Amino acid sequence: MATIQDVARLANVSVSSVSNVLNGRTERMRAETFARIEEAIEKLGYRPNQIARHLKTGNIPVLGLLVPSTSNPSFAHLAVAVEEVAQRRHNYRVLVCNTYRDQRLEAKMLDDLIGLGIRTVIVISSIGDERHIDAAINRGLAVVSYDSGISASRTPTHDHVLPDNTLAGRLAAEHLISHGHKRLAFAKPRGETISRRQKVEGFLAAIEAAGPGHSAQIIEVDAGSRFGDNELSKVGFDAARQIATMKERPSGVVAVNDMTAIGLMAGLRDSGLSIPDDVSVVGMDNIAVAEYVWPPLTTIATPVKEVAETMVEQALARARNPDLPPAEFSFPPVLVERQSVTRPRDSI
Amino acid sequence: MATIQDVARLANVSVSSVSNVLNGRTERMRAETFARIEEAIEKLGYRPNQIARHLKTGNIPVLGLLVPSTSNPSFAHLAVAVEEVAQRRHNYRVLVCNTYRDQRLEAKMLDDLIGLGIRTVIVISSIGDERHIDAAINRGLAVVSYDSGISASRTPTHDHVLPDNTLAGRLAAEHLISHGHKRLAFAKPRGETISRRQKVEGFLAAIEAAGPGHSAQIIEVDAGSRFGDNELSKVGFDAARQIATMKERPSGVVAVNDMTAIGLMAGLRDSGLSIPDDVSVVGMDNIAVAEYVWPPLTTIATPVKEVAETMVEQALARARNPDLPPAEFSFPPVLVERQSVTRPRDSI
Repeated sequence: MATIQDVARLANVSVSSVSNVLNGRTERMRAETFARIEEAIEKLGYRPNQIARHLKTGNIPVLGLLVPSTSNPSFAHLAVAVEEVAQRRHNYRVLVCNTYRDQRLEAKMLDDLIGLGIRTVIVISSIGDERHIDAAINRGLAVVSYDSGISASRTPTHDHVLPDNTLAGRLAAEHLISHGHKRLAFAKPRGETISRRQKVEGFLAAIEAAGPGHSAQIIEVDAGSRFGDNELSKVGFDAARQIATMKERPSGVVAVNDMTAIGLMAGLRDSGLSIPDDVSVVGMDNIAVAEYVWPPLTTIATPVKEVAETMVEQALARARNPDLPPAEFSFPPVLVERQSVTRPRDSI
Repeated sequence: MATIQDVARLANVSVSSVSNVLNGRTERMRAETFARIEEAIEKLGYRPNQIARHLKTGNIPVLGLLVPSTSNPSFAHLAVAVEEVAQRRHNYRVLVCNTYRDQRLEAKMLDDLIGLGIRTVIVISSIGDERHIDAAINRGLAVVSYDSGISASRTPTHDHVLPDNTLAGRLAAEHLISHGHKRLAFAKPRGETISRRQKVEGFLAAIEAAGPGHSAQIIEVDAGSRFGDNELSKVGFDAARQIATMKERPSGVVAVNDMTAIGLMAGLRDSGLSIPDDVSVVGMDNIAVAEYVWPPLTTIATPVKEVAETMVEQALARARNPDLPPAEFSFPPVLVERQSVTRPRDSI
């Protein structure tokens, strides 16, 4: 049975360097040294008694990731980006848990992660009430929240990383307004989250700034589940049915995300309307399939790679030093122009 | 600090019932009892010392799930289905790891899971060589494989759950043939997996059975990564470019999965071809967005819910009783007809 000393000897490094790799403390290690130690571990078939070791060091190289649902492609994409940074850069594994934005389930999962000895967690949530997260932090967890934002009314307890959702809503509306649209709508599932509210706020602010003659409507659709993460396209399809029968039909619609936008386009087609000639559509998130649907979807993209990097680095930094002052990191989204937007018919 | 005895008293059950819940042994428990125990645990804020308990029982209520990549919506869907069964029915959490079908990464992750004390793993892989899985089983892991199948040439070491991929390929080809298509093609990324090979085999068998006058072509596209899980639509788009310039252009194309089919339709449109009038397209998987793209995609659906149930139940059964004889569970797929297939032009 190989020992840690055998590994150190074969890799020509100190025992503490090997220990650093085993404990995921590799951020200051040269890539070449890291690779040599990994190779020696594999060659010798070295198997540290991890649970015993974890009990001693209190540091398991596993990062918890709570997401609403990986069946929402936006979150699946973000989860893969987090895993890539954690794994390639830090040799951390990522434990992904779907929470369906259920606060009680989030609380249970945080408990479980603590029970497994995991000390570092990224929470993608959009639930405004963060008391369960505060409780987990009090029990020693290093947490980074995504998509919620520090509330002005309370003392921040941890780091928040977020796309600038208000700007996303504004960019989408401004793009339609700049093409001459005056009757606009915003389509979303009924369940309210912080990010959805912010997108709507930005959307409405842009329309107000555009001045008289511009109108806005919020179209909310009941989804099968509370927040509709598994039925996003269905939500868009149903919103389109409503839009098609309106007397004063909007000529430009912003969907809360791309899956909803894709369903919206299908529903508009189903009602005999063409996109973008009858109705222009803007999505949000720029998921992989957005450029391949018909028409290719104009959307608002979040810099996912940078968001993932910041979340992982910040979570690990906080695990090393719990006294870091809580910070907020905001990422501006950008407009990605494709073919789902044109001038409205009545403006031609 | 509440004890397990306090929980049992409040829930009006035995200590061993509470212990069963804590250890995920809930399959024979009445839902009402389960709910009452959970409520008591929450009410009292009972926190078992999980690591100590795990060391004693050797049974952590966490299921490992290795998948190629959750950025492939088929796997994301399957992962969510597995999690739902594990969580709702057994109170198990699921640890999702993306392996990118890299055998070395799979082996490392199995090591890590063992190190964390996890004893039950579902491996979605399609890698033919399963020696790393055998090694993990020898170290005490209960494993269920998805999408690979027991090889005739070796003694099975564990359970295999798989969609009948050969039948999927055959159903797709037969559907096109029944519409009068004679020149068919199959589009896929170049990287070979067991499931991809089986789909092609079924596709070719159907065309051979259709008799003289029918021809088949396999169109393979180099993806950015070895198996192309993150670039599936791009693969389809590039395949369409090849198809559009062929002298003897196929009139019906089967794509290895829906993401590739969606990219294929975009690429055909980009080359001035219309779907289904110029080229009929059949996808595979029936992902959520397939019914909302244009045209709505005809595809082959796997019964994901039943597959997920079987994998979870079988993995937990094997963890309880490692001596169960290894079995293979095959799930027949079904054709889902939408609007991406019609008769070929030259047959009208």
